[in-house]
Amino acid sequence: MVCAVDITEKPKLNNPVLIEGLPGIGFVANIAALHLIKELKAVKFAQIVSSSFQDFAVTTGDGTARSPINELYYVRRQEGCRDLIIWYGNTQALTTFGQYELCGKVLDIVQELGCNFVVSIGGFKKDEAAAVPGLYSTATDLETMKTALDLGTKVMVGNVFGIAGLSVGLAKLHCMKGFSLLVDTPGMNPDVNAARFALNTIGKFLNLQVDQTQLEETSNEIKRMLETFGLVKTISEEKKKEEQQLRWFI
Amino acid sequence: MVCAVDITEKPKLNNPVLIEGLPGIGFVANIAALHLIKELKAVKFAQIVSSSFQDFAVTTGDGTARSPINELYYVRRQEGCRDLIIWYGNTQALTTFGQYELCGKVLDIVQELGCNFVVSIGGFKKDEAAAVPGLYSTATDLETMKTALDLGTKVMVGNVFGIAGLSVGLAKLHCMKGFSLLVDTPGMNPDVNAARFALNTIGKFLNLQVDQTQLEETSNEIKRMLETFGLVKTISEEKKKEEQQLRWFI
Amino acid sequence: MVCAVDITEKPKLNNPVLIEGLPGIGFVANIAALHLIKELKAVKFAQIVSSSFQDFAVTTGDGTARSPINELYYVRRQEGCRDLIIWYGNTQALTTFGQYELCGKVLDIVQELGCNFVVSIGGFKKDEAAAVPGLYSTATDLETMKTALDLGTKVMVGNVFGIAGLSVGLAKLHCMKGFSLLVDTPGMNPDVNAARFALNTIGKFLNLQVDQTQLEETSNEIKRMLETFGLVKTISEEKKKEEQQLRWFI
Amino acid sequence: MVCAVDITEKPKLNNPVLIEGLPGIGFVANIAALHLIKELKAVKFAQIVSSSFQDFAVTTGDGTARSPINELYYVRRQEGCRDLIIWYGNTQALTTFGQYELCGKVLDIVQELGCNFVVSIGGFKKDEAAAVPGLYSTATDLETMKTALDLGTKVMVGNVFGIAGLSVGLAKLHCMKGFSLLVDTPGMNPDVNAARFALNTIGKFLNLQVDQTQLEETSNEIKRMLETFGLVKTISEEKKKEEQQLRWFI
Repeated sequence: MVCAVDITEKPKLNNPVLIEGLPGIGFVANIAALHLIKELKAVKFAQIVSSSFQDFAVTTGDGTARSPINELYYVRRQEGCRDLIIWYGNTQALTTFGQYELCGKVLDIVQELGCNFVVSIGGFKKDEAAAVPGLYSTATDLETMKTALDLGTKVMVGNVFGIAGLSVGLAKLHCMKGFSLLVDTPGMNPDVNAARFALNTIGKFLNLQVDQTQLEETSNEIKRMLETFGLVKTISEEKKKEEQQLRWFI
Repeated sequence: MVCAVDITEKPKLNNPVLIEGLPGIGFVANIAALHLIKELKAVKFAQIVSSSFQDFAVTTGDGTARSPINELYYVRRQEGCRDLIIWYGNTQALTTFGQYELCGKVLDIVQELGCNFVVSIGGFKKDEAAAVPGLYSTATDLETMKTALDLGTKVMVGNVFGIAGLSVGLAKLHCMKGFSLLVDTPGMNPDVNAARFALNTIGKFLNLQVDQTQLEETSNEIKRMLETFGLVKTISEEKKKEEQQLRWFI
Repeated sequence: MVCAVDITEKPKLNNPVLIEGLPGIGFVANIAALHLIKELKAVKFAQIVSSSFQDFAVTTGDGTARSPINELYYVRRQEGCRDLIIWYGNTQALTTFGQYELCGKVLDIVQELGCNFVVSIGGFKKDEAAAVPGLYSTATDLETMKTALDLGTKVMVGNVFGIAGLSVGLAKLHCMKGFSLLVDTPGMNPDVNAARFALNTIGKFLNLQVDQTQLEETSNEIKRMLETFGLVKTISEEKKKEEQQLRWFI
Repeated sequence: MVCAVDITEKPKLNNPVLIEGLPGIGFVANIAALHLIKELKAVKFAQIVSSSFQDFAVTTGDGTARSPINELYYVRRQEGCRDLIIWYGNTQALTTFGQYELCGKVLDIVQELGCNFVVSIGGFKKDEAAAVPGLYSTATDLETMKTALDLGTKVMVGNVFGIAGLSVGLAKLHCMKGFSLLVDTPGMNPDVNAARFALNTIGKFLNLQVDQTQLEETSNEIKRMLETFGLVKTISEEKKKEEQQLRWFI
């Protein structure tokens, strides 16, 4: 199967922007994406299972099983605003091969829905937390890069690992545009402050005001989910390994 | 090939339940499944070979070679009772990718035969043996979870690795229902007592009385098979490794 | 591509027997197969390249490059004798997945040519060399096992790793018959004596007399080839690792 | 996808020669290929992304993202001269499987364009730099080998790892001809001197004079690109590992 996609609806969308929000360093993307889904009452229209996900089920408090999965949601907005597609999930793929397949599949799906712009979110590992975290970006092209810099980001220096980087790189090869938004974070735990800055920056870009009263609660929800997945612990343990080996944690 | 399936018969079955019984911790599922096959004179109707199985042959006492293989059996029961499909084998797949392919293939096959319910069996590693082992479950949905709890199980907490977890997780994504039944076991050797409790619980669920006089003999048969496969030894050696690395032993 | 097969001829053969002779412990199979090819003037009719072979080229004395490859040869014999298909090569596949794909592909090809019997050859690692090495076998079925025992072999106890085991195991699943012939060998270097005993046993089985005057020369040819491939050295180094990790060296 | 190929033009070419120039030891091939592309104003006509490339994006000074990618360029030359196809990229594939797929795909593409000759370039690791580096070659056949020797190369002894070796080995299996040109290099940094000798040798073979005034600048460009990719550093670190593990660095 490699990637098994189940599309339940093909929504008509207005020039939609894909927002990538899979788990990674500081879970910045994951918190931001889940918060957008909840606050904007996003509608799930596709789910993706990959043979490159971990082969287990995790249990929730009520006993029901949860699988590694990726999901796509859409948000219709008022006229004159670009609609949103939100890429959310509880895992990235475990292998390089799986990451390419997963990312290529998602770009194929959203491109068919008229999407030609990707914003990926990631954490940028920093040893110490800062009240005002640095924001960095890399883009598919110079014009989009200018847009990203105008949002208050600095030029990212270095490699952007995992889906956050791959989605922008592959977007370029798909003749799409987009940028990766990276936020400083110590990275070991879900970082609600970094997510707040990510949401603010995306809000500025998309002219989108999202109430953040419940953001802390969203972060805790991510934390509980991740604990059952063993991801939070995993990251602490991974800390000892070389940064290059943290393959999919941005 | 990935998974090569050889289906020799497509039996007409009455609302069948799939019972997963591959080797894992304590070989609880494996003993239970083989015992059901023998006592209920189950009929083999499919065999599956995967490129993700180990590439060797093992020898039996009489010199004939045995390959890593998975098999599907069916059992027709008296009117008013759900028929059974039993998923038996001497191995799980060696890689995450192979596990997904194998499990997805089996669910496809049984779903085509009208099956919409999966019971997976597994051992839950505990340091010491107990005369009355704890029983745990996780389910695809709350209603099924209630059914599982009513059978005397407690809510499973944590990850369910390997096919035991994957089959319930993928069942949910296949729009099937089911639960995973996990039994406390020290896990190093075929655990006939844990298998007995698994069989009793499944018997209660399916209204199925199975004579257990020969269960010890079945367990010994599994043990001999596993010794030739080197699996029993492997598990003892694996014990030293981290639990997460025991990838397919539940 | 996984396996790219180039078939240059589909020979009509009389009830042919497949003789597997890939490199492995003691290179017993490899020497025996090459010797049969040379002495019986076998004709190459297929070559197979797999993405699971090592990605390099090795050089020969005259500067020409040699790739990892598998080849199939046929030998037509006098009336009343079964023809031969010889499976020769300078490598096995590097991964379990590749081994299954390779072996399945070869069995598909030969089965289409009417072959229903496989003899695989392997070395059985023993710490010390013996003038008269032990011979062991495992077979697809009891009748074939009896045939193998009548040739002077003993029942093999344990796992038969790599293509030697896989080819007999998969043969059974292909509804073919066959046996694996294993010869005691210290295993670090091409073992001409073990190859001699393998050839004698196969000769007895197939009523085939092959001149062995040039066997030492064949063994040296294998040795030179293997040295350029770095295989001989590799095996010595591998010696330090656990036997289970010697994945494809039987 | 394994390899996703995007062909933007199918140029008509005169008996073209493929020149392989992916990153490897000393980046000899990479510098030479990029220099040919720039000096001969080669035209890009295909790009290839593989699921076996690293899953990240790297950033450039202006903030734009760069993905692991391979590209094919063509050069039309004056009448009577063979045209060129240049295989350039910033990475090889990360796995053996990916290398075979990538190389097979490129050979398929160029063969369809009438190409039947491959020249691969590589560095041959030597502990010390030499003003006049040794040149070695291995070829698909004796006639081509003679051509390569006549260019002033010596017979290569040993394995040619990675695409440099694989492309010549697979060329032979594609019924194409060609040779691998290997140049002594200490190998840790882009080696402009080794690239110069490679270009001179290829120039002699193809009757092609290329201005080398800007070669140092090309080498620095490769160096900057590689530093952002982390490849230069990687190689230094890899140095400590066994040479066999330097899988794709020739």
